Amino acid sequence: MTKPCIICVAITGSLPKKADNPAVPITISEQIESTQQAFEAGATIAHCHVRNDDETTTSDPEKFGLLLDGLRKHCPGMIVQLSTGGRSGAGHARGGMLSLRPDMASLSVGSNNFPTRVYENPPDLVDWLASEMKKYGVKPEIEAFDLSHIHKAAEMNRDGRIPGKLYVQFVMGVKNAMPADRDTFDYYIKTVERLAPGAEWCAAGIGRHQAEINEWCISSGGHTRT
Amino acid sequence: MTKPCIICVAITGSLPKKADNPAVPITISEQIESTQQAFEAGATIAHCHVRNDDETTTSDPEKFGLLLDGLRKHCPGMIVQLSTGGRSGAGHARGGMLSLRPDMASLSVGSNNFPTRVYENPPDLVDWLASEMKKYGVKPEIEAFDLSHIHKAAEMNRDGRIPGKLYVQFVMGVKNAMPADRDTFDYYIKTVERLAPGAEWCAAGIGRHQAEINEWCISSGGHTRT
Ligand SMILES: [Zn+2]
Ligand SMILES: [Zn+2]
Ligand SMILES: [Zn+2]
Ligand SMILES: [Zn+2]
Repeated sequence: MTKPCIICVAITGSLPKKADNPAVPITISEQIESTQQAFEAGATIAHCHVRNDDETTTSDPEKFGLLLDGLRKHCPGMIVQLSTGGRSGAGHARGGMLSLRPDMASLSVGSNNFPTRVYENPPDLVDWLASEMKKYGVKPEIEAFDLSHIHKAAEMNRDGRIPGKLYVQFVMGVKNAMPADRDTFDYYIKTVERLAPGAEWCAAGIGRHQAEINEWCISSGGHTRT
Repeated sequence: MTKPCIICVAITGSLPKKADNPAVPITISEQIESTQQAFEAGATIAHCHVRNDDETTTSDPEKFGLLLDGLRKHCPGMIVQLSTGGRSGAGHARGGMLSLRPDMASLSVGSNNFPTRVYENPPDLVDWLASEMKKYGVKPEIEAFDLSHIHKAAEMNRDGRIPGKLYVQFVMGVKNAMPADRDTFDYYIKTVERLAPGAEWCAAGIGRHQAEINEWCISSGGHTRT
């Protein structure tokens, strides 16, 4: 079951700031430049967050639009995935960029704890985000922070709320959510194959777990994220 | 690995009302009477919620105190477990009854979706509830609504926030949380045995799933809930 490895690059993320790491691209032009480098090195998917001028995260559709235009121009053929994650906004503001019709967007289908708070994805917001993605032809990447999120995504796939083949990302190593645990990783794959045959999956480890999880991905035939 | 079966009876719960089922015990004296019947029929643990006069749920320590006294008198030796669940209150109010020193109390260690909302158990509240249980010698029953909750409980057990042998209840069949899935049930048991050897576990299915899950419990050596 080895598949060609798709390399997914997460530009900027929602947390690091210039003060933590001066190399983090913050402005749209820095982001485009850095993604272009990854694209030329073989990355095929760009997972994107955008920032305000003060480096705080935002879901501003105008910023996302500028980034999307730049990436389409400088990285032709690259799959652009915009984040609808809750660190960047609340409620329907989280999906305001979906009408830009990016190739993909992240979609959380359940709630869980984060290091210091609850990551809230109430059922009606999940349904609304999924329906906006369906309306604009945006493929969701399911952010599975826990096992039940895989069950929920498979249910939404079966009943048509998420059309087509499911694409699931396992997120591991976030404090108070799922740790980077190999046995769980293997069970996640087994569950995806059981509940949504033919689905694709990838995995993201947070911080120091990224390298470890990339190895697990490669050895199990999934995609990797850098 | 068959153990003697402990029968756990959930009196009242947090949802049903007299209008749904006239047999639901609502007042403290109805609850005591109904638990005594279950006790005489062999139940050894009573999982308890309390209600206001208008049947809405509450965490009122005075009501819990009356119930606890009644159960100690009418069901001598029965293990009384009080609910700290979020349907009955918010924040520290959820743990106000712990100073009554019941034998056990329920403890959620993560957040997840419920049918129409987020079940919020933020990390600082989880830590506070666990520390109150430790302070008053109350044994927590971990309410595992998802796989990461088992990991979190094992972590808190290792670092002493939850002392002694872990006692975990798998909650399945709640819409938007974990469905009643046999493969997951078996993996939950495997995970408890791997991360917290010697831990006890039981399982609760919601509504129509209860009978099914009781059968899985009995066939796998866990406790059952009626
Ligand atoms: Zn990915
Ligand atoms: Zn992201
Ligand atoms: Zn129980
Ligand atoms: Zn309960």
